[in-house]
Parts: sequence; C-alpha cells; structure tokens
Amino acid sequence: MTQTIQVKEISKAAFVDFGDVIDTSGAPDKIINQGLCGRFHDRAKLDFTSGRAGVSLFKAEARSLPMALQMVERHPEGSQLFIPMSEHGFLVIVAPDENGTPGQPKAFLTKPGQAINFHRGTWHGVLTPLSEPGLFAVIDRVGTGANLEEHWFDTPYTVELKNKKTGTGIAKAS
Amino acid sequence: MTQTIQVKEISKAAFVDFGDVIDTSGAPDKIINQGLCGRFHDRAKLDFTSGRAGVSLFKAEARSLPMALQMVERHPEGSQLFIPMSEHGFLVIVAPDENGTPGQPKAFLTKPGQAINFHRGTWHGVLTPLSEPGLFAVIDRVGTGANLEEHWFDTPYTVELKNKKTGTGIAKAS
Repeated sequence: MTQTIQVKEISKAAFVDFGDVIDTSGAPDKIINQGLCGRFHDRAKLDFTSGRAGVSLFKAEARSLPMALQMVERHPEGSQLFIPMSEHGFLVIVAPDENGTPGQPKAFLTKPGQAINFHRGTWHGVLTPLSEPGLFAVIDRVGTGANLEEHWFDTPYTVELKNKKTGTGIAKAS
Repeated sequence: MTQTIQVKEISKAAFVDFGDVIDTSGAPDKIINQGLCGRFHDRAKLDFTSGRAGVSLFKAEARSLPMALQMVERHPEGSQLFIPMSEHGFLVIVAPDENGTPGQPKAFLTKPGQAINFHRGTWHGVLTPLSEPGLFAVIDRVGTGANLEEHWFDTPYTVELKNKKTGTGIAKAS
C-alpha cells in the first residue's frame, strides 16, 4: 500500500525541529548603505563538527508533483543551507530521527525569497526544485571523511499537493 | 571635472585580484542525487581573521544607471559573498588598494546565476542591484570589533553603460 505525504506551506514554527527558514519577514536588524539596504543578520545555524564551511552551487533538474520519495539522507558532520538563486519556492522533505532511522517524513513548500538550512544530522530529501533553473548556492561542510548516511524506504511514499487538479490549495503547516 | 567609469561584463580573469566569480560555467565537479544534480564544489574563498562566517539576507533598493559613486568600503577582517536570490545580474564596483586608499575604481555587471565573493580587505562599492527584488544572501563575518573602513571620494565618479541610449552594448572586460 502506498503511503501519501501531503505538501504543506513551510513556517518557522513547523520547521523548528529540522532547521532554519531564512527570509525577510519582520523588520531588518539594521539599515545600512545610507538607508538603501536592510540587513537581516545572522539567520542560519552553521554547525560543523569537522572540516569547514564551503560554498558550492547545485544545479538540479526540476521535478513535478506528485512524486515518489524513495530515500532520505543526513549529514552527521554538518548543517546544509540551500539558497535559491531564482524567485521560486522549492520542495523540502524532512523526517524526525527515531533511534537512528527516519520516522514519518514531512513535505513543505517554501515561498520565493526563502532559504532553508538543515540542522546537522537532520534526515532530509535531496534537493527538489519544482521550477527551472534549479540553481542553488549551498553552504555545507567541506572536509575529508564520511558525512553521508542514506535511508531507502521499503515502500516509497507519494508526495502530493492537496488539490491535485489545480496545483494550488497547499495546506497550512500544523 | 567628473570622472566616468564604464561598466564592463564581469569575468573571472578581470576579477581575480578582487574576489571570486561563482557560477556554473564548465563541468560540475560531481554529479549527485542519482544523476539529477551537478555540484560545483567549494567555489569561494571564505576568509575570516576573527569572528566566524554568518549568513544574512540583504534587501536593497534597485538603482539605475548612470549613477554617482561617492564612496567605497572594505572589511579588513573578512571576505563578503553576495548571492542573488533572483535571476538578475547586479553592479559590482571594486578598486585596488594603493597604500591604504582606493585607486581607480572598476565597475562590472554580473550575469544571472553568478554570485560574487569579495576577498578580505578588498575596496568595493555597496550592494547595487539594478532590478527588483534586490534580495541577496550574504556570507560575511559575524563578530565583535571594527570591520569597516569607508573612503569618500573628493569628487564622485559617474558610473555608466557604454551605450547610454539603449542600455546595452556593455563593454567586455579587458
């Protein structure tokens, strides 16, 4: 029997156990550049137990919903931050850890202008843009040694929007 | 007498003394996620003599050309990386250091999909998007103590495109 995961709008509250939602909601922490720029300061928990922070670009193929979720992965040595270099939301899948394996996954849709930082060791799906160009800047650990665990589900999940016909009507995060 | 700076297309070669141009030109270093994603690995020289790397968002007002360049600044304690969260190029102004003050500034226009990392201590203009939304993720130093030097020019420069009428015809970087 296929299990279904319904995509919900992301919110900082719903995502707090998994990572940071980084956006310009609320007031800037500082106004700089003679009043022409707002700085929203130090919004991600960068966390590396070995190696160092590095900046890479990821260019990923756009997917469409519904889609099968076959696996999640995690990086025990470091956080991983995804910054979209386009004005599109993207799909974010995470799962709580239950004694070393992922529990029930959750699927979120971000809004344009939001970056997502997975806290160190958080189970997550691979980068899943839903639109071209699928280009992201990624801040994650650069270093030697193993930093990837994968978990393949016995039965893949199906990730879908609430309203399959219109593609709209995304449920609010509970 | 007003001095004019002509905007040129950015290139890695023209920018090498000032910082990193980060994009997906050339082949990815690694293909990940079951063939669906290219990783362009570790492309920025993050360099902090004190404090640590932090992630902030900058929301800046879009400017238009020609514009006056009144000042440049530099951060002696850290590099500063600008990642556009939209598919627009932006204006990048830098200047060589000449015994503690900036020499002749240069102005570059980036292409969509390019991020720019100013090396530590590089004289540069403030963040200057030329299009809305002017939203950038910024990786720079988070820490205490002074990390900003400003230099105001006695006579402002005028920064302009080669072909003022059409806004096109940007000169190649020499």
